[in-house]
Amino acid sequence: MPTNRQYRLAARPAGLPKNSDWEVVEEPLPSPEPGEFVVKIEYISLDPAMRGWMNERRSYVPPVGIGDVMRAGGVGQVIDSRNDDYLIGEHVSGWFGVQQYARSDGRGVMKIDTRVAPLPVYLSVLGLPGLTAYFGLLEVGQAKEGDTVVVSAAAGAVGSVAGQIAKLKGCRVVGIAGGPVKCSYIVDELGFDAAIDYKSEKVRPRLRELCPDRVNVYFDNVGGEILDDVLTCLARHARIVICGAVSQYNRKGGMRGPSHYMALLVDRARMEGFVVFDYSARYAEAVSQMGGWMTAGRLKSREDIVEGFDNFPSALRKLFRGANHGKLVIRV
Amino acid sequence: MPTNRQYRLAARPAGLPKNSDWEVVEEPLPSPEPGEFVVKIEYISLDPAMRGWMNERRSYVPPVGIGDVMRAGGVGQVIDSRNDDYLIGEHVSGWFGVQQYARSDGRGVMKIDTRVAPLPVYLSVLGLPGLTAYFGLLEVGQAKEGDTVVVSAAAGAVGSVAGQIAKLKGCRVVGIAGGPVKCSYIVDELGFDAAIDYKSEKVRPRLRELCPDRVNVYFDNVGGEILDDVLTCLARHARIVICGAVSQYNRKGGMRGPSHYMALLVDRARMEGFVVFDYSARYAEAVSQMGGWMTAGRLKSREDIVEGFDNFPSALRKLFRGANHGKLVIRV
Repeated sequence: MPTNRQYRLAARPAGLPKNSDWEVVEEPLPSPEPGEFVVKIEYISLDPAMRGWMNERRSYVPPVGIGDVMRAGGVGQVIDSRNDDYLIGEHVSGWFGVQQYARSDGRGVMKIDTRVAPLPVYLSVLGLPGLTAYFGLLEVGQAKEGDTVVVSAAAGAVGSVAGQIAKLKGCRVVGIAGGPVKCSYIVDELGFDAAIDYKSEKVRPRLRELCPDRVNVYFDNVGGEILDDVLTCLARHARIVICGAVSQYNRKGGMRGPSHYMALLVDRARMEGFVVFDYSARYAEAVSQMGGWMTAGRLKSREDIVEGFDNFPSALRKLFRGANHGKLVIRV
Repeated sequence: MPTNRQYRLAARPAGLPKNSDWEVVEEPLPSPEPGEFVVKIEYISLDPAMRGWMNERRSYVPPVGIGDVMRAGGVGQVIDSRNDDYLIGEHVSGWFGVQQYARSDGRGVMKIDTRVAPLPVYLSVLGLPGLTAYFGLLEVGQAKEGDTVVVSAAAGAVGSVAGQIAKLKGCRVVGIAGGPVKCSYIVDELGFDAAIDYKSEKVRPRLRELCPDRVNVYFDNVGGEILDDVLTCLARHARIVICGAVSQYNRKGGMRGPSHYMALLVDRARMEGFVVFDYSARYAEAVSQMGGWMTAGRLKSREDIVEGFDNFPSALRKLFRGANHGKLVIRV
C-alpha cells in the first residue's frame, strides 16, 4: 500500500537548516472528505522565503509550526476527488507542502494548462516567482521605458523574470549574479544589457561604470552589502523594491541593515516592500500576459530540477549557496 | 569701524565638531555691488543638517568647503541696498551663513512680516523647519485623519510642528523625546496624545502599548535604534518619512542601518526620503496655512535662543546632545 512521505519541521534552525531540523514522517495516503480532492505532487518549489517561514517571528504569513509539514508550493495531478471542480487527471498548483501527496479543498489552488508550458514552469515564470517579478517591478518599482533597472540574484527565479520584463518595457537592465556562468546566461540568453559578477568584481565601481545615469529602479532579492552598494548609486526619485534578502536569511545575530539608507533622502528615493499575495486578484491577468510573452519567445524560463524527494534538505541548502541555476524545484 | 565676524570651516570634523574645526575671521563690513544688498543678521539658525554639510561626501547640497563661511539660515534687516526690491529697514530670511553681516543678490531670500510673528519664528515654524514638517508629513507621509503618527525628536524644531500638524489633521500622535520636560511639553502644551521618553523608557514595548493599531506614519528625525523600534510596529502600508538621522551624524565609523528594514516587506510599507527645497514653489502656500494656524492659536512655536554670536560652536554641540528645547537659534 502506497504511503505519503513528508518533511515536517523538527526544530527552528539557527543559520542554515540542518538535516536534523527535519523529521521525515510516513503516513497513509490521504483520502478526500466531501468537497476535497487528493493531489499526487510531481514538483515541489524551493524558495528563499521558506527560510523565513521556519522562524518563530511575525511575518507576512504565520510561521510553520514545529511538527507541521513544511510549507511549499507544488504542482501535481488530481488522483482522487470528491469535489466537482477538480477532476481526476487535472493538473493543479497550490500550497501542497513538502510531501508526496496532499489533500485540498481547493483554497489557493490554480488549474494548470500543460499545453501552454510544462509543469515546472508553473512554479517558475508562470507561478509565484514570475508573478512576484511582474508586480514587484511594474507596480511597486513603477519601471518605465528609459529607466535604468538593476536586479540582484538576477539569474534566479524572480530576478531573471524581473530583468526580462524590464527589457520588454524598454529599460536598460543590469543584473548582479554570482559567477561567470550566470552572468553570461543573463546577458547572452536573457538579453540583459550587462552583468556584474559579485563574486569576482567590486559591485560599487562597476555600477558607476554600467549606470552612468544612475539607478532608477533596484529590484532587491539579496539585501546585505549589495543593497548598500546600489544605495550609493541612486538616481533622483529612485524606487527600491524590497522583494527579499537572501544573503541575510541564515545570518546568525540578526539582519544587517542598509547603512547607506540616508541616500533615500539625498536622492528623494523610496524603499518599498510588497507581498505578491496582495495581487492575487490580478494573477490571471499577469499569467496571461507572461504566457503570451513566453509563447512569442520573448520571455524565457529555466528550471534547475533536483531529482528525488529525499534530497529536499540538501537542495534547500543549495539555494542559499546560490548553487542553483534557474528556478530550483524537486521532482518528487 | 565695524567689522564682520565669521565662522569658517577649518577642518572636516571626526564625530562631534570641536572648537578647532572652526576659524573665526574678521573682515571689513561688506558693501553691496549693483543689484545687491547687505543684511545685518539678527538670528542664526542651528540645525542638525549642518553636520552633514561639513562632510566631504555627496549629498543634496554641496559640502561646505574648507575655508568657507559655514552655511546657515538666518534672519535680519537690510542695512544697505543697491537692489530696488530690498529696501533698507526691511526684514528678510535667507542662507546668510554663520556671520554677522551678509551680502546678497536676493537669491533664496524671503521677506518677513514681523507683524505676523517675531523674527526667530521665521527660522522655526514659519521657516524651513516648519516647511519641512509640513511637506514631509502631508506629502511624503500622506498622513490622514485616523492615522496613528509617531514623531521622533518630537520636541525639536521639525518634530514639534509635524506632530501638531498631524493633530490638526485628526491623527493620533505619539511623540518620542528625551527627558520629562520635553515629554510633558509635547503632551501638555502641544496636545500630542502621548509621549515616550527614550532616555528612561524602553521604546519598543511603549510603542506597542500606545499604538494598539500600530503605526501608519513614522516621521523620523533620528535614525538609529529608534527607527528599528518603530519598524517592529508598523501598520500595513505604513509610510516612514526619512527627514533626518540626528543620532547618527556624529557617529564615527559610519551610519547604522535599520536592521529591521524587512518589516517594509512584511507590512507592505515604504521608507521615503525628501528634501524640503523641492517644494519651494509651494512655500508661500504652506507659510500662509501655518501662519493662519498660529494666529488662531492652533500651532505653537518655541525657540531656544542662545545669546551671543561667539557661542556658535558650543551651541551647535548642544543640538547634538539634545540639550535644546525648541528651535535652536543664536541671537547675534
